[in-house]
Amino acid sequence: MSNGTLYGVGLGPGDPGLITLRAAELIRAAQVLAYPARPGEPSMARAIAAGLIPEGVEEIVMEVPMTPARAPAQAAYDSGADRIAEALENGRDVVCLCEGDPLFYGSFMYLQARLAARFTVQIVPGVTSVSAAAARAGRALVARNQRLEVLPGPLPDDALRARLREGADTIVILKVGRHLRRIRALLGGMGLMKQALYIERATLPGEVILPLADAPGEAPYFSLILITKGEDPWL
Amino acid sequence: MSNGTLYGVGLGPGDPGLITLRAAELIRAAQVLAYPARPGEPSMARAIAAGLIPEGVEEIVMEVPMTPARAPAQAAYDSGADRIAEALENGRDVVCLCEGDPLFYGSFMYLQARLAARFTVQIVPGVTSVSAAAARAGRALVARNQRLEVLPGPLPDDALRARLREGADTIVILKVGRHLRRIRALLGGMGLMKQALYIERATLPGEVILPLADAPGEAPYFSLILITKGEDPWL
Ligand SMILES: C[S@@+](CC[C@H](N)C(=O)[O-])C[C@H]1O[C@@H](n2cnc3c(N)ncnc32)[C@H](O)[C@@H]1O
Ligand SMILES: C[S@@+](CC[C@H](N)C(=O)[O-])C[C@H]1O[C@@H](n2cnc3c(N)ncnc32)[C@H](O)[C@@H]1O
Repeated sequence: MSNGTLYGVGLGPGDPGLITLRAAELIRAAQVLAYPARPGEPSMARAIAAGLIPEGVEEIVMEVPMTPARAPAQAAYDSGADRIAEALENGRDVVCLCEGDPLFYGSFMYLQARLAARFTVQIVPGVTSVSAAAARAGRALVARNQRLEVLPGPLPDDALRARLREGADTIVILKVGRHLRRIRALLGGMGLMKQALYIERATLPGEVILPLADAPGEAPYFSLILITKGEDPWL
Repeated sequence: MSNGTLYGVGLGPGDPGLITLRAAELIRAAQVLAYPARPGEPSMARAIAAGLIPEGVEEIVMEVPMTPARAPAQAAYDSGADRIAEALENGRDVVCLCEGDPLFYGSFMYLQARLAARFTVQIVPGVTSVSAAAARAGRALVARNQRLEVLPGPLPDDALRARLREGADTIVILKVGRHLRRIRALLGGMGLMKQALYIERATLPGEVILPLADAPGEAPYFSLILITKGEDPWL
């Protein structure tokens, strides 16, 4: 019996309509699904795919704690990878559900790092939250010779300030969450508030799109800031 | 009679399986399609969607010349926007086909700039060539607190060198085409060849993935360079 294949499948930013045809086909035909969840919370990846998941499928849930320390998350991926490896060794394919694009700040890369040497891995790219946010806000990301930079919100002030000062035409800050106040103060101090949008739960129920100046005091995990400084597309 | 809606629909990087469910639904139900093409060449966007296009649909082809001067392309979008506006005024929806993601170096933003004030515009984001290239190469784009930067190949040497020297963890250079030799020499001079991949026609027939050092002398339009400098995802 030959080993199964591990599929890392991007599901897009949240609206199930933004799942790709290939991803939908793999999920509908799946025998074994795997996905991460924060302990005690429903998995966003599973929620996006819910309408496509067949009855009776085996589900491998990886409970990944969100701690600054790496060891607890590493242990969760170790044990998830072991369970996935067992299914693959039994000749079953495993479809790993990934919010957005699997290789863009996605947890799939930790499974790939653990399993790619022993098993065939196929990755199905997905629509990122960056593309979704721009689409929902109706703002061009980049045109012609413009540059795009993506920054994680947890970067310290100095690093963020240096990147913002240098100034790609469009800058997207992900993983805003509890860093919202700090980042807003930093952007305000640099005179960048006017060009900044706050975008929460893009394409999902409860979506919020506001000038950053009007953003709420607290941001949930699924939020980002979109700063477009480039000229408007030419008419 | 009310006006039709203009849809800007991302089709992903080339493999029709990477079209989203929503995009497929809009194309299958379309009365009027619009898409750009280079004069005398088949449209890549239309080719990606071909299997979904219904019989008898009206097609608005915008022949956009690729010249350094802006005026000829502007004129092409002016006349395309006029034809699209006529259909919208007649109460027909228009589905504009866009390779990749519509707002990521896509031509849809030129139509949006011309039509959004008068008509309802909805954008369906798509999988970018960046996500597709990473998936096909099996290389993580960014993890944790890493930064991603996207650069257009036509940028002059000085600008490229400055961006590469500053050094986001992952850098993607799009629109490589006839700039391949120049960019390769520049990366070689900066000691970045080892980390650079050359990726042509990702997810399409004739796909090429090679270390940049082994890339062909000439690159087609659909090619990019992926430079990953970050540490590997932790085990
Ligand atoms: C670990 S990263 C995963 C990114 C994902 N793989 C992608 O391709 O977009 C999680 C961050 O992505 C952003 N994000 C993901 N989905 C989002 C959505 N629907 N709306 C706004 N931001 C989102 C948020 O900044 C969140 O903190
Ligand atoms: C005008 S931009 C359009 C980008 C597109 N909207 C996207 O979301 O990827 C065209 C450039 O995208 C890149 N590109 C698009 N599709 C590609 C593919 N299948 N393989 C490699 N590069 C591609 C190439 O660098 C090309 O020069």
